[in-house]
Amino acid sequence: MKGKVTIFDSTLRDGAQAEGVSFSVEDKIKVVLALDELGIGYVEAGNPGSNPKDLEFFERIKDIKLKNTIVAAFGSTRRRGISPTEDGNLQALLSVDTSAVAIFGKSWDFHVTDIINATLQENLEMIYDTISYLKDKGKYVIFDAEHFFDGYKNNHEYALKTLDAASQAGADCLCLCDTNGGAFPQEIYDITKLVVEKYEIAVGVHCHNDCGMAVANSVMAVQAGATHVQGVMTGFGERCGNTNLSTVIPNLQCKLGYSCIPDENVSKLTHTARCVSEIANLQLSIREPYVGKCAFAHKGGMHIDGVLKNSRSFEHIDPETVGNERRFLTSEVAGRTTILSAMQKILPTVEKNSPETSAVIEKLKELEYEGYQFEGADGAFELLIRKTLGKYKPFFELENFKIIGEHPSYSDDKTASAVIKIKVDGKSEITAAEGNGPVNALDKALRKALEVFYPSLSDVHLTDFKVRVLDGNSATASKVRVLIESSDGVSSWTTVGVSSDIIEASWIALVDSIEYKLIKDIEQKFRTFM
Amino acid sequence: MKGKVTIFDSTLRDGAQAEGVSFSVEDKIKVVLALDELGIGYVEAGNPGSNPKDLEFFERIKDIKLKNTIVAAFGSTRRRGISPTEDGNLQALLSVDTSAVAIFGKSWDFHVTDIINATLQENLEMIYDTISYLKDKGKYVIFDAEHFFDGYKNNHEYALKTLDAASQAGADCLCLCDTNGGAFPQEIYDITKLVVEKYEIAVGVHCHNDCGMAVANSVMAVQAGATHVQGVMTGFGERCGNTNLSTVIPNLQCKLGYSCIPDENVSKLTHTARCVSEIANLQLSIREPYVGKCAFAHKGGMHIDGVLKNSRSFEHIDPETVGNERRFLTSEVAGRTTILSAMQKILPTVEKNSPETSAVIEKLKELEYEGYQFEGADGAFELLIRKTLGKYKPFFELENFKIIGEHPSYSDDKTASAVIKIKVDGKSEITAAEGNGPVNALDKALRKALEVFYPSLSDVHLTDFKVRVLDGNSATASKVRVLIESSDGVSSWTTVGVSSDIIEASWIALVDSIEYKLIKDIEQKFRTFM
Repeated sequence: MKGKVTIFDSTLRDGAQAEGVSFSVEDKIKVVLALDELGIGYVEAGNPGSNPKDLEFFERIKDIKLKNTIVAAFGSTRRRGISPTEDGNLQALLSVDTSAVAIFGKSWDFHVTDIINATLQENLEMIYDTISYLKDKGKYVIFDAEHFFDGYKNNHEYALKTLDAASQAGADCLCLCDTNGGAFPQEIYDITKLVVEKYEIAVGVHCHNDCGMAVANSVMAVQAGATHVQGVMTGFGERCGNTNLSTVIPNLQCKLGYSCIPDENVSKLTHTARCVSEIANLQLSIREPYVGKCAFAHKGGMHIDGVLKNSRSFEHIDPETVGNERRFLTSEVAGRTTILSAMQKILPTVEKNSPETSAVIEKLKELEYEGYQFEGADGAFELLIRKTLGKYKPFFELENFKIIGEHPSYSDDKTASAVIKIKVDGKSEITAAEGNGPVNALDKALRKALEVFYPSLSDVHLTDFKVRVLDGNSATASKVRVLIESSDGVSSWTTVGVSSDIIEASWIALVDSIEYKLIKDIEQKFRTFM
Repeated sequence: MKGKVTIFDSTLRDGAQAEGVSFSVEDKIKVVLALDELGIGYVEAGNPGSNPKDLEFFERIKDIKLKNTIVAAFGSTRRRGISPTEDGNLQALLSVDTSAVAIFGKSWDFHVTDIINATLQENLEMIYDTISYLKDKGKYVIFDAEHFFDGYKNNHEYALKTLDAASQAGADCLCLCDTNGGAFPQEIYDITKLVVEKYEIAVGVHCHNDCGMAVANSVMAVQAGATHVQGVMTGFGERCGNTNLSTVIPNLQCKLGYSCIPDENVSKLTHTARCVSEIANLQLSIREPYVGKCAFAHKGGMHIDGVLKNSRSFEHIDPETVGNERRFLTSEVAGRTTILSAMQKILPTVEKNSPETSAVIEKLKELEYEGYQFEGADGAFELLIRKTLGKYKPFFELENFKIIGEHPSYSDDKTASAVIKIKVDGKSEITAAEGNGPVNALDKALRKALEVFYPSLSDVHLTDFKVRVLDGNSATASKVRVLIESSDGVSSWTTVGVSSDIIEASWIALVDSIEYKLIKDIEQKFRTFM
């Protein structure tokens, strides 16, 4: 082991500056929990000064106990001409009451004079005052030296003075930022090395991918002595994105021997990256290093031959190390250890080599091939296992449904209607409902029909509904994956459906959601009797 | 200028080993023409020995006069135990009659003994014999030293012996391959430097992206003295892909001063990368360095302010250098100046304080409040401006549509049907279509009705379809935002619709997409007349 590298994730701040990304408070909490589970040291969760809707998030996260992660708020140095106590943004930053804060300040003289119109001296005071003030308040302060590398190349004396100001004010970490993403590996190495040798506090690095080298630059900075790496779990961010942590963590930990997250969590990396992408509603690139679907997929015939003889021949690392799996593009191969633990919750006696395990793997492969994804769809995965193990009995039968949408419609919020006929224990029920669009009408009609037989369903409500198009190229005829999150006020669960018809995909997820709830009710009754 | 770097593109060979990629002969010719236009030195176009359908391609490409590009064929060293003249693959390679060939051979002792089951001496002879034979035939021979870096790390003496064999046989270029993509920048630099110093012929580099560092590794190799870089125009390839040439070319040429392609062609880079992606039928990542749609897109308010003062503040290079363009993501964080530049494209006289500017901002705010998002929806934003400025006339009127979805349905891929009635210049058209789900049926019916009046619409196809649920809490009754990306083969544009009914939201985006296309057609005609 070469030593510890602190990982600082900015998915919720710099990541949120990516085109097409927008997190709800609920999404943000889910991201923090996923990163905590992986063992990420710091999560930068927002800028309370510039985004007041973040306040609700910080209020809610305070009540959640995290195992590994410290939540940090992000802000800038005080504005010129006022004191920290007069600065509304800094006061907003303090109001959210995090133990750590990341403060960015200018290190490039050109930015000081031409962009924020301050004098070089004023900027040094802004850095010093802000950090002293926050240290007085007992915060752990990371100084993000914005544009440090560009600044160093333009005026190294001044760039270093900004670090002097931060370090004299008591900053705990000096994070060197390649804000424009234009720096190259060798210069990152040389400049970082010089900073590491000059200061006694931790030095960090924050890179952008505008030259396609954010990961390499971060690795080089660590090799030069940096011990803090900022990035975004799956790399999205302003412009071309930030350092991809799902690449840099295994590069550092599995290949170079640094310690970034607890060793036993490295195999959760693929799951975490996919989970964060899912929450951000972004497609994770299939070619993403380590965690992408193709990262260990072999297509060339000679490559497949080689891997079958010895996987080292065409794999730089064992896919299971990072929780990914090898695929031969002609014949799918899935891993079994991951699935076993989920199965043992339902059938404790099942083992790695039991025929049931193979059966579930087969079914899973088949469904994944169709476009299903069970990452994060706990409810659906449990039902899949139950169905394959024979530990499942349908709660109702669908006879048929019909949906009609019309434009113009007679009412703005009743644009569709659904007629449904179901059967429970030989007894039929036909009913209808109207809704905002076809899926809403169907959801309402199904519940209405089922509540006659299962009154507890009246507690269930859908809390999230996500749609992902699986293959952009065939556009509106392409398959969609619908993820539905439901809650009964006590617990929540997620189900999934895939079809080229969004109504069919929603139907599959709705039915699984309801059945999952009914199974939980029975288990609950059973436990109460014991 | 630091000197010439030869670019060797393998889109048609290593790129074709990417999941989901398969080129027709026609596609291959289009790719060669696009790369020739850009000024790429070599294009590796296939392996005649392992892929007989490549023979037709090589036959046809012979008759096409290229300005810059030399087409190379790819093959391996002779099999053990036979002479080059007895080796069918080598004979196939010769039969396609290219002036250049790339020959891969083993440089990692472990691969020699454990994968191809040869002795170390036999492998050296295979390299020597093959290259001598091809040199006798007058070929320009590039020796691809497969797994060179892994081989060097495992047994540097043997790895160098393989280069000795190639160089003694007369190879014109020794290309060092990081076949498994596991090497790191510093070691690539050190090992390449040593090879460059040892041999008098050209040294090249071929990297894979399994550690997310293929571009950085290639740049480091060039800094160590390599003068030949292999890669794939947009980076796709086996597993995580190859060195992305659309990143490495501007890194080397615009940032480090090497010459890779003719200077006057650098501005064609974005167009070429997008064109190659289109032919490969892959979505180019919006976050691709230099050539992606987001490479110069600014979302953060402070970033936008900075760029407006001086673009250097948040751009490492001028977007026009590589033929890309700056974008300010139209969102609540973007100010008046962003909107103004978009408006001036339609009404050049409009100013920051014109009443029209305020009217557009008001409309934008109102729509964003409803859940619209115009960042990335260029087509929709232009239509919004036109409508607000009165520079818009509808191309058709909707009388009504009706959509019916049924379960069970009579056919798996025709689960919904749509009936639509529209009117153009007082003339009505009623028609119907079936589809996979309601949106697909509606899309098909609308096009079918409109093509009667506007035949150019037959060129338009949807290239992407995204659905985002805006407020998870009301679940299936919540609003959805539909983003549709369309293309007519020449350009592409994005439109957006918001509604609590997914059909209504899709309808809004579909209509805008079609109207945008029709406006562009009129403008095009107008320019032709001028």
